[in-house]
Amino acid sequence: MLKTVRRILFGSPLPSWRAVHERLPKVLALPILASDAISSVAYATEEILRVVVLAGAAAIAAPTVPYISLAIVVLLFMVATSYRQTIHAYPGGGGAYIVAKDNLGDAYGLTAGAALTVDYTLTVAVSIASGVAAIISIYPYLAPYRVQMCLIGVLILTLGNLRGVRESGLMFALPTYAFLAGAFSLLIVGLYREHTTGLSIAPSAPVKQVGIPLTTFLVLRAFAGGCAAMTGTEAISNAVQAFRPPESKNASTTLMIMACILGTLFLGISYLAWRIGVVPMEDGTETVVSQIARVTFDFAPWMHVFVQYATCAILILAANTSFAGFPRLASIMARDRFFPRQFYNVGDRLVFSNGILALAFMASVLIIIFHGDTHALIPLYAVGVFLSFTLSQWGMAKRFRKLREPGWRTKVAISSVGAVATGVVTVVQATTKFMDGAAIVVVLIPTLCMIFWAIHKHYIELGNQLRLTPEDKFVPIYNTVIVLTPSLHRGVLRALEYAKGLSADVRALHIEVDPVDTALLIERWERWGGDIPLVILESPYRSLIAPLLDYLEEAKHERENYLITVVIPEFVPAKWWHKLLHNQSGLLLKFTLLFRRDIVTANVRYYVEK
Amino acid sequence: MLKTVRRILFGSPLPSWRAVHERLPKVLALPILASDAISSVAYATEEILRVVVLAGAAAIAAPTVPYISLAIVVLLFMVATSYRQTIHAYPGGGGAYIVAKDNLGDAYGLTAGAALTVDYTLTVAVSIASGVAAIISIYPYLAPYRVQMCLIGVLILTLGNLRGVRESGLMFALPTYAFLAGAFSLLIVGLYREHTTGLSIAPSAPVKQVGIPLTTFLVLRAFAGGCAAMTGTEAISNAVQAFRPPESKNASTTLMIMACILGTLFLGISYLAWRIGVVPMEDGTETVVSQIARVTFDFAPWMHVFVQYATCAILILAANTSFAGFPRLASIMARDRFFPRQFYNVGDRLVFSNGILALAFMASVLIIIFHGDTHALIPLYAVGVFLSFTLSQWGMAKRFRKLREPGWRTKVAISSVGAVATGVVTVVQATTKFMDGAAIVVVLIPTLCMIFWAIHKHYIELGNQLRLTPEDKFVPIYNTVIVLTPSLHRGVLRALEYAKGLSADVRALHIEVDPVDTALLIERWERWGGDIPLVILESPYRSLIAPLLDYLEEAKHERENYLITVVIPEFVPAKWWHKLLHNQSGLLLKFTLLFRRDIVTANVRYYVEK
Repeated sequence: MLKTVRRILFGSPLPSWRAVHERLPKVLALPILASDAISSVAYATEEILRVVVLAGAAAIAAPTVPYISLAIVVLLFMVATSYRQTIHAYPGGGGAYIVAKDNLGDAYGLTAGAALTVDYTLTVAVSIASGVAAIISIYPYLAPYRVQMCLIGVLILTLGNLRGVRESGLMFALPTYAFLAGAFSLLIVGLYREHTTGLSIAPSAPVKQVGIPLTTFLVLRAFAGGCAAMTGTEAISNAVQAFRPPESKNASTTLMIMACILGTLFLGISYLAWRIGVVPMEDGTETVVSQIARVTFDFAPWMHVFVQYATCAILILAANTSFAGFPRLASIMARDRFFPRQFYNVGDRLVFSNGILALAFMASVLIIIFHGDTHALIPLYAVGVFLSFTLSQWGMAKRFRKLREPGWRTKVAISSVGAVATGVVTVVQATTKFMDGAAIVVVLIPTLCMIFWAIHKHYIELGNQLRLTPEDKFVPIYNTVIVLTPSLHRGVLRALEYAKGLSADVRALHIEVDPVDTALLIERWERWGGDIPLVILESPYRSLIAPLLDYLEEAKHERENYLITVVIPEFVPAKWWHKLLHNQSGLLLKFTLLFRRDIVTANVRYYVEK
Repeated sequence: MLKTVRRILFGSPLPSWRAVHERLPKVLALPILASDAISSVAYATEEILRVVVLAGAAAIAAPTVPYISLAIVVLLFMVATSYRQTIHAYPGGGGAYIVAKDNLGDAYGLTAGAALTVDYTLTVAVSIASGVAAIISIYPYLAPYRVQMCLIGVLILTLGNLRGVRESGLMFALPTYAFLAGAFSLLIVGLYREHTTGLSIAPSAPVKQVGIPLTTFLVLRAFAGGCAAMTGTEAISNAVQAFRPPESKNASTTLMIMACILGTLFLGISYLAWRIGVVPMEDGTETVVSQIARVTFDFAPWMHVFVQYATCAILILAANTSFAGFPRLASIMARDRFFPRQFYNVGDRLVFSNGILALAFMASVLIIIFHGDTHALIPLYAVGVFLSFTLSQWGMAKRFRKLREPGWRTKVAISSVGAVATGVVTVVQATTKFMDGAAIVVVLIPTLCMIFWAIHKHYIELGNQLRLTPEDKFVPIYNTVIVLTPSLHRGVLRALEYAKGLSADVRALHIEVDPVDTALLIERWERWGGDIPLVILESPYRSLIAPLLDYLEEAKHERENYLITVVIPEFVPAKWWHKLLHNQSGLLLKFTLLFRRDIVTANVRYYVEK
């Protein structure tokens, strides 16, 4: 029954040889691997606006938002250029954990691993929350069910990934292409209408004429928020192996195409938002992108609806990339003994089931704590992402300096500049958004590192204790077999017969509660007891456990190199309710002995036919 | 820790030799054994009044209640006289179950057993509910907590009885003597004041001038309600052994004293209730006895309070008698294999713990269902009591006719008259109160009988299957020992060494998930594997379970008279959280094999030191 339900939900088990790598052409690799990065435009502009709006109407009217966006796009191209080098250096896939561990050492690798763990979890939470927000923007009456909708999204992704969804490449390309179609239409139509007839929007929320001053800190905070646009940039360099040969070249080209698309969309949306005068809604009932689409497509509302659905679709696809990425990271870290080894193995559908479940659990907790609010989640997000950018590029710089290949000076320069830039942004992220939630991550990452170390230490120590050395010899261990004998019937006889085959030293042990029973037992013993000695222990307090444990303690010390095997006879009734009619003393004894040293228990079952 | 809590709550275990019978002098036997019967006066009069009041003011004004009470007292003396004969015939204690089973056969014995089971449960529920009602009569603001107070009462009795409370005889005599002092004071002062100055009460509830006609049915219903006064009459005859020698004579005398006290109090209270004109309160905030005491002792309210506390005390004592009686009945019926055998043994405090817990559970369920309302519970009560009276006396009549001892004709006559009278009352109970709840009992008693039979049948069939016959011979069984070998380390080596001592046919079984692991295993095997053959199974679906089960099925059929022993190596980590870092595959395998036939599992544990 359980098996059937399992099969329907997750499909039949897949044999190991099915795990051959499916190689992707660029036209599929782009939408699948770039969805995480490109989908960020759904929330990045809004994050900048939410800070700038605090500075009042003048700040909104000035081109503050487009200029901040431009700065982020510059940073994006720095990082992309730097990651092209990683792609060529690590054709097997160069995630921040591997690069940092290889080139900087375990401690930095672990820091990157912790940052990535946080990052993957937040990608799921933020993308799903943002996808749900895109839908709520067109159906505002769904707003009260925000958290439930997010959790259903996580559940669907979890089930899909437990089944193993990799095979359907084309289906996964559609959402990205749909989003690109919608987003570019929005830009073209929006820019055209803006420059001809002009577009404007009634402010959805009153903007203070004079806000707080637009200090450097506030600008940095807005910049830090907008950096959410860059999340997911690393995805392509992690998955070079997924490309068709020449892998590195194809991956590198795809990365640059992705950066161009992302940069164009992000800049365009920020520009339109400024020109139209969009103000973000505090209560989150409509996203900035939705407001732009609503006014741009006021002549064709179905286009607005299409943009929203496509946004939701690409965001869910973005969340899905974490469901592939985190379990793979967990498996690699488990191989290196930093993660519990349950994360190492693939399940019977060739997916890392434990990693999928752990990710779904962590993301659900975040969604519940932050009420599925994208804006509340984002301050936690970018610190981890930029920390891993920094470590990865720093690692690459060190690597190039060490290898001194042709042109190494340029490579070191590119990686170093990228590392310094993203390192500065990491600090900006952590400080400007510290009170908004970044503090949690600042505490969480070192904590995770310590946990990874503790796990590692345990496995290493365990390995040292379990490892066989030349001193270890194979020495057979002999047995004192003790059969618990409350009475003598067919079930007990079978246990005695079994015990007789195990050892030369078999004893039957009877704990006397009622002397009448003992007399009956002795009488039967003479007839059916074989030549097994019967030991009778008194139990003045009618307990079965205490005298048994005392006897076993003594028996343990009789000889060297002997183990005690306790044989517990059981009979298995034919019907389930019959079990209620028997003392569960066998189970109780077994449970008690489970925690005793140097005692092995063996239950010999006798099946009753009716 | 758990052990300490246990000891504080229930006391230290008691050795078996402490179970010598404490013999009671009459002056202690009376209050302890008669509390159940005598306490019935706390609610019996009220039960009559509640029916008579339906017939309107004229029926209350006429001496209906005293005359019905008189009829019940006559019946009481018939039953008491009849039970004197039981006491002499069964000096070892003659409960209805034993008497009916001995003289009428198993089916009647079981019916009596079922009736008594219902009876004991209701004694607890009714007595506690009535005791709580006595307290609420003086503190009406406690009325909303009725159910909670009842459950606390059950809990206290349960804990007390699990500790074993028999030793404190004198403490148990006090409530009865206090109640007798209070009740007789009430009668004497009440009758005196009534016949000199007169007493009257303002009707607490309006009585209809013209009610429904006082038909024979209504009178019978009132009579049936009042019969609650007789519950507990059998207690003394069940416990003849508790008396000092000459046991039967002392018990018989005590029974007659009890009947006289009960009869006097019941008649007196019913008479006073009529003369004063008490009307029962529908909402149950004050009992009839409390109303009488309030008006009788209006010059000394503390006497009223005393009567109420004493009433509560004797009722709790009455409930306590069931906590001694039911577990003893359950143990006797378990010995006869009609009850689950868990009820047979005494626990470490020399009490039948399972019987006590079962009774407490059933009584609590009743209290919750009927909201702790005495009046709602009583219709369920008397059917069982009178059914057991009938069966007991019928059994005695049959016994006397069979034994034909001197004077047997008189004895047969007394028992027969008693049996017929109580038999008729049983039918009256079942019919007049059918819709008030007696229907439940009418269904429940045959259902219980069927359950008892099913239990009996199971034990007999099981005994036949397990019993050794001359054909059974002691034939040692040999072993195919299979050691599960995921890898080779010290923990596995120990399991292999252990297995080597068990049998000549030991095999190590490795299920291949990753060929790299297999190669490593084979390399180590040559060095440390002893001469044990290593069997390697492929698992294309990476499952450990399926290939193992297939292999075991084959191995089973290799030879006759062999069992398969599966040795599962385990290592036990030093810290609890280390367990989270290891696959629980050992546990999973053990659980799977638990339900396979002809396979014994043995876990060999290796303790890791740090």
